[in-house]
Amino acid sequence: MGSRVPSLTLTHAARPATFTVEAIDETGTAQPTPIAGEHPLTVYVDKREVLTIMTLGAAPEALVIGYLRNQRLISSIDELVSVQVDWEVNACSVVTTNGLANLDEKMAKRTKTTGCGEGTVFGDLMAEIDDIKLRDDVRLPESVLFNLLNNVRLHESIYKQAGAVHGCALAESNGDILTFVEDVGRHNAVDAIAGWMWLEGISGDDKIFYTTGRLTSEMVIKAAQMRIPFLVSRSGLTQMGYDIAQRVGITMIGRAVNKHYLLFAGAQRFVR
Amino acid sequence: MGSRVPSLTLTHAARPATFTVEAIDETGTAQPTPIAGEHPLTVYVDKREVLTIMTLGAAPEALVIGYLRNQRLISSIDELVSVQVDWEVNACSVVTTNGLANLDEKMAKRTKTTGCGEGTVFGDLMAEIDDIKLRDDVRLPESVLFNLLNNVRLHESIYKQAGAVHGCALAESNGDILTFVEDVGRHNAVDAIAGWMWLEGISGDDKIFYTTGRLTSEMVIKAAQMRIPFLVSRSGLTQMGYDIAQRVGITMIGRAVNKHYLLFAGAQRFVR
Repeated sequence: MGSRVPSLTLTHAARPATFTVEAIDETGTAQPTPIAGEHPLTVYVDKREVLTIMTLGAAPEALVIGYLRNQRLISSIDELVSVQVDWEVNACSVVTTNGLANLDEKMAKRTKTTGCGEGTVFGDLMAEIDDIKLRDDVRLPESVLFNLLNNVRLHESIYKQAGAVHGCALAESNGDILTFVEDVGRHNAVDAIAGWMWLEGISGDDKIFYTTGRLTSEMVIKAAQMRIPFLVSRSGLTQMGYDIAQRVGITMIGRAVNKHYLLFAGAQRFVR
Repeated sequence: MGSRVPSLTLTHAARPATFTVEAIDETGTAQPTPIAGEHPLTVYVDKREVLTIMTLGAAPEALVIGYLRNQRLISSIDELVSVQVDWEVNACSVVTTNGLANLDEKMAKRTKTTGCGEGTVFGDLMAEIDDIKLRDDVRLPESVLFNLLNNVRLHESIYKQAGAVHGCALAESNGDILTFVEDVGRHNAVDAIAGWMWLEGISGDDKIFYTTGRLTSEMVIKAAQMRIPFLVSRSGLTQMGYDIAQRVGITMIGRAVNKHYLLFAGAQRFVR
């Protein structure tokens, strides 16, 4: 992953994605088995410890930037001077231009909602949702959906090797994949995509977001926050994911595999 | 779920697990589609707001008790006077005997590690792991594993209907299921089992813990904390999950479906 932000100092410290261990199968045979990496990465912002993320480590800089973005701890990538990952000490050091003035307040608020949707500022996110307007002049033809699903099928290398990861893709309006990120948590993969979009200066407003994970409330909110009108998942959805999709008017497709899918919301943008 | 703790006042406020919405499939046909419930539940301990959990709502009291247990906010169920869920206001009110003296300290610590393993006090958990001794005089015959997998296959009702949930089971040493909990998050289901064990006065030291979810570091740590020697998953595992399983000596089996499995750790307790 590169960066179109010339003033930003950035490492490119991806870890090996899989490791091979020996497991004994039902026939009693020892099988070399690839498993997904999982590493703690402690994030320091202006030398202050903020959190530790467990990650596959495939795109740690984008992950940290996307985390800060999605948690609303920064509002623009221009607030960042450097993002440097050092796996010798499992740390990511972030330097900002002016500090995070309201970090304490935000951290206090987050404390109350930890665990909710697996660790996000939920109350704040819901308050934002009603202000979001997604583009309504873009369309997703079924043929593009099928093209995307085929591209994803060819792309998922770590999952195919080792399982135990979730993948997210950001695709162009023709279904071509712009970037594909896998991580041990659904939310890490989404955050890494959000970070990558900032690094590359890419707008979400005509893109398709694909995830292997379930469409819970938090996934729908994050896609909407990135202004992405199309949300596609291989898995199912929850009631709140559905309700929020209806409320924000996102085009939401679940159970999308091969030539099958279920269209749950935002049918006005979908063309059969 | 009942309680063997007579002094504890408890609601039994399970929510309906699924809701039916209409989705359009690839043939253009509207399909009534069951989806999993997802509800915010805000936890108040002694009238102080602690967090909001997103949950299916199948076992909310056990979930909250297990959350407090697994986060080490209480050390015994005897510290609880009442746990009362009111879905009219999406709240669970917990009253303790003596208050949570060190809540502030623990919340501050948690803030730093939020997001890690999806929202837990990771540093504390790792420090505890080395003190855990699991029983080594218990065995898991392959026939019991197969019995458990068959019992699980017959049991998973919400997942089969609606997908988008994870299930956990606690099983006896013969593979019979003692309790089975499904929830929108892997960690909720584990926490609900931990709460149920306290409510029923059940020790984990000869039990089998089954999960549909991946064996990440946090899942292995939680099983070990419950002193459960056998950990079985339908899914794969991560490198840290593997490393911690080796370190704590838990018998860890992944990819367990029908008559297939991979034994990753603790082979001394497994009998083919």
